[in-house]
Amino acid sequence: MIKVLIIGKGNVAYHLHKAFTKLKSVDCEQISSRNLTTIPQADVTIIAVADDAIASVSKHIQTKIVVHTSGTFAMQDLQNSSEKGVFYPLQTFSKTKEVNFKNVPICIEATSPEVEKILIQLAKKISNNVTIITSEQRKYIHLAAVFANNFSNHLFAIASKICEDNNINFDILKPLIAETVEKIQTLPPQKAQTGPASRNDEKTIKKHLHLLHKEDAKIYKILTKSIQNGA
Amino acid sequence: MIKVLIIGKGNVAYHLHKAFTKLKSVDCEQISSRNLTTIPQADVTIIAVADDAIASVSKHIQTKIVVHTSGTFAMQDLQNSSEKGVFYPLQTFSKTKEVNFKNVPICIEATSPEVEKILIQLAKKISNNVTIITSEQRKYIHLAAVFANNFSNHLFAIASKICEDNNINFDILKPLIAETVEKIQTLPPQKAQTGPASRNDEKTIKKHLHLLHKEDAKIYKILTKSIQNGA
Repeated sequence: MIKVLIIGKGNVAYHLHKAFTKLKSVDCEQISSRNLTTIPQADVTIIAVADDAIASVSKHIQTKIVVHTSGTFAMQDLQNSSEKGVFYPLQTFSKTKEVNFKNVPICIEATSPEVEKILIQLAKKISNNVTIITSEQRKYIHLAAVFANNFSNHLFAIASKICEDNNINFDILKPLIAETVEKIQTLPPQKAQTGPASRNDEKTIKKHLHLLHKEDAKIYKILTKSIQNGA
Repeated sequence: MIKVLIIGKGNVAYHLHKAFTKLKSVDCEQISSRNLTTIPQADVTIIAVADDAIASVSKHIQTKIVVHTSGTFAMQDLQNSSEKGVFYPLQTFSKTKEVNFKNVPICIEATSPEVEKILIQLAKKISNNVTIITSEQRKYIHLAAVFANNFSNHLFAIASKICEDNNINFDILKPLIAETVEKIQTLPPQKAQTGPASRNDEKTIKKHLHLLHKEDAKIYKILTKSIQNGA
C-alpha cells in the first residue's frame, strides 16, 4: 500500500484524487493548501496548486517524495529538502467533465532513479501513457498544449458565438470539429489544412473579414497570414 | 434511378462522387470543368469547382436542376436559366483521408419547394444530417467553419512544430486534443476553457511569450487577450 497525499482543491487535484481513490493499492488523502498546520505523512505528496503557490507550499513538507503537477514550474524550484519530482498530467480538467485517466499522458521527472521508479509505478496505476520528460521539454509541451487546447477551444467558442448570433445551431459544426481531430490521427496537421487561407482565396477572405467584429477580424487576419506563411 | 452529374475534380467533387457511386439508386458521372464541350444530361448537376469558376461553369448547363457546393457563393449567382440550388457538405475534405459521408451535414437551398424536395431526397441517400439553410445563414456557417476547422487545425500545426523543434513526439498531445473536442459535446466551449489565459496567470503567459518566435508570439498574445475578453 502506497500512501499519497494530494494538496490542493483545484481541477487537477480533484481528478487525481478521484483516480487514486478508485485503487485498492493506494491510500489517498486530499487536503487544502490553506490549512497546512497539520500535514498527514505520505510516501508521495502531490502539490496540485497554482504555480505561484508551489514554492511556499513545498516548504512545509519534509517527508519522502514531494512532487508538483505543473507544466511550467521547474522541479528544482520545489523548496522541500527531501526528494523532488514532477507528476504532470497533460490534460484539460474541469470539475464538471469526467476524464478517463487511463488515456491521460503523465510526464514524470525525479531527482534520482529510485524516485523516478516509484513515480512511474504510481503513474502507471492510473494511466497507460507514462513518459519521462525533462523540465526543459515539459515547458515546451505545456506551451504546445496551450495552442492545441486552450486556443483551439477558444476558436470553437468564437465559432459558437457566430452561430448563436445568426440563429444557427452550433451542433451543425460538431461533425466538422470531430473530423478536424480525426484527420490528424493519419495526416500531419500541415497536410490536413484546407480552406480559403490555404488556397489563397482572397475573395472569400475579404468577404469573411467583412462579416466579423473588429477583434475577431484581427484573429482571422493573423491566422490566415500564418497559414499562408506555413507553420 | 436519379442521374447526377458532378462537375469538378477537387476534394469535394472527389468525395461526393465516391459517396454517390456506392448507391444503386443513383447514376453518377463526373467530368472536369476544363472540358465542357459536351456535357452529359442529368437530373441534378452538381458544380463542385472553385468559387471563382462557379458562375462561368453554370452558364454552360441548361438542364433541370443546377446546384453548387460552396459555403459562400449565393444561390442566385448561378447563371443557368433552369432551376437552381445549393448542396453544401459542411466538412473538411482531403483526397488522402476517407470520410464517412453519413455524418456530414449537408446544407440545402433551392429555388422552389419541388427542387428542395428532390435535393433533400438526394442528400439523404448519402447523409443522415440534412438541413435547409438560407444563403445568408450559409455564409456565417462557412465563416464559423473556418474558425472551427482551418484555424484550429493551424494551431495544431503550430503545436506540432513546437514539439518537433524540441524533440518531443507530437503524439503526446493527441489525448489532449481528443479531449478538447469531447469536452464540447457536453460543455459549451466558453465553459470548457482552461489554461493560463482564462485564469489570468500573467507569469506563465510571460514565460510562454519568451519561448516563441515573433509571429507565433503575436498569435499567442491576440488569442490570450480574446480569451480574457470573453468570446
